[in-house]
Amino acid sequence: MTTIRVAYQGERGAFSERAARRLAGDEIETIACMTFDAMFDSVLNDESDCCVAPIENSLAGSIHRNYDLMTESGLSIAGETNLRIVHNLIAPPDVELHHIRRVYSHPVALAQCTRFLGAHRAMEPTAVHDTAGAVRIIMEEHLDDAAASASDDAAAIYGARILVRGVEDNAQNFTRFLLLKSTDRHLPVPAPAARWKTSLVFRIANKPGALFRALGVFAMFDIDLSKIESRPIEGKPWEYAFYLDLIGRAEDAKIARAISNLSEMAEMVRVLGSYPSKW
Amino acid sequence: MTTIRVAYQGERGAFSERAARRLAGDEIETIACMTFDAMFDSVLNDESDCCVAPIENSLAGSIHRNYDLMTESGLSIAGETNLRIVHNLIAPPDVELHHIRRVYSHPVALAQCTRFLGAHRAMEPTAVHDTAGAVRIIMEEHLDDAAASASDDAAAIYGARILVRGVEDNAQNFTRFLLLKSTDRHLPVPAPAARWKTSLVFRIANKPGALFRALGVFAMFDIDLSKIESRPIEGKPWEYAFYLDLIGRAEDAKIARAISNLSEMAEMVRVLGSYPSKW
Repeated sequence: MTTIRVAYQGERGAFSERAARRLAGDEIETIACMTFDAMFDSVLNDESDCCVAPIENSLAGSIHRNYDLMTESGLSIAGETNLRIVHNLIAPPDVELHHIRRVYSHPVALAQCTRFLGAHRAMEPTAVHDTAGAVRIIMEEHLDDAAASASDDAAAIYGARILVRGVEDNAQNFTRFLLLKSTDRHLPVPAPAARWKTSLVFRIANKPGALFRALGVFAMFDIDLSKIESRPIEGKPWEYAFYLDLIGRAEDAKIARAISNLSEMAEMVRVLGSYPSKW
Repeated sequence: MTTIRVAYQGERGAFSERAARRLAGDEIETIACMTFDAMFDSVLNDESDCCVAPIENSLAGSIHRNYDLMTESGLSIAGETNLRIVHNLIAPPDVELHHIRRVYSHPVALAQCTRFLGAHRAMEPTAVHDTAGAVRIIMEEHLDDAAASASDDAAAIYGARILVRGVEDNAQNFTRFLLLKSTDRHLPVPAPAARWKTSLVFRIANKPGALFRALGVFAMFDIDLSKIESRPIEGKPWEYAFYLDLIGRAEDAKIARAISNLSEMAEMVRVLGSYPSKW
């Protein structure tokens, strides 16, 4: 049996790497990518078998670039998980709290620690590309007045020290990750889950009542929607595609019927995948 | 007559400053703020009469922080405009294209210039807080190997030179700005516009068919929706509020009736404002 290669964005110790293990198991080879684009390319070029994409944060909202890349790439969804995001203030072992003048992290992570940073005005927030990368930087460059905000995994991997745990403003901080693979690729079947979800994207004519009628196909069969998101269509300012998540599998009789009805009225419908939801 | 004070995020020459003049006229005092939070505070503390908030980009999607701040602050919408966003490669007068090793700009602006940057691998993208601020930095620090990506306004203000015009990937790049004011503040009446829009936010119970029924109140009266957006509710992971834009004024008989019907079934409805849409 060959080891599954899972691409993720960030450096070793990134939250995405933890999500990869939760979705695909501990016996995987993780492949670090600098950007989301590079991560998708890695799967399309067959350098990886699948990738793990953060798609939504419970505080910051959707990660639009990954919605777009998911559609453009034609990859399909094979699994979903939610990770509690805990940011920690992490410094080299000999650096004390009162030494710190800069805190490195991803801009979204810094934005989620505004209360802590507001109470520690001496610390200037400094944006870098990745939370775990921030820990690597402060360790490699032997910075004696800098800290990072990142996961406890990252602190352990780079031999840094956690000075303050849980510096995030809001504990209800979860990120939803999707496992994405080529449509024709067979991944080992995931363990049976409590519930399945199906994601799809559709476009409808921009006229009164159009979205109402589109949602009617699901309401008619009492299908539970878990999310709707409008996304601008590139090249057509202020026209939108709709991303929809629903509870159930695309093969279920009612859901198959609803999607078939939607196809009759929509300009485009694409099922992005049916997958077990792992919490 | 006193001069209107308009707060915006960014530095002199920011796209937001141009939007401020388009929305409130040339005879205004613009007040530069470091962050969106500071900009809203400026209005709430009566240091400004109103502010100009970018709310959506036709490529990048909604600017969620401003949706949240608009709701939290209780400010209401007094106007709307759309600005074509053109990014230019801007350098100090004596710096030539082949000297450039770094390009400073806001992360979203850098992400919109990936084709240009991909074709000029010697230039490392470097994130700073503001596009216009990037021009100020390269001029003040006399950097001889750096450029900025920003508006032509910023080039003119800081005495820098445009080396390449229009380095953005996609010309269909517009940002929608809202003029926001305290509900009880009277601003000079804006010029009559071709059309009015109304924005509102609502929450409904998380059950099958709920969104369908909510949209039905508008479909029933043939009201044209121009945008729907779901936003996570802080503290309730995976529950959503919905932001809706529709064509018309909240005082129009059909729209007033629809909003009243929505209030009967929703957990919360708030009208964020009716305003002229200036293109």
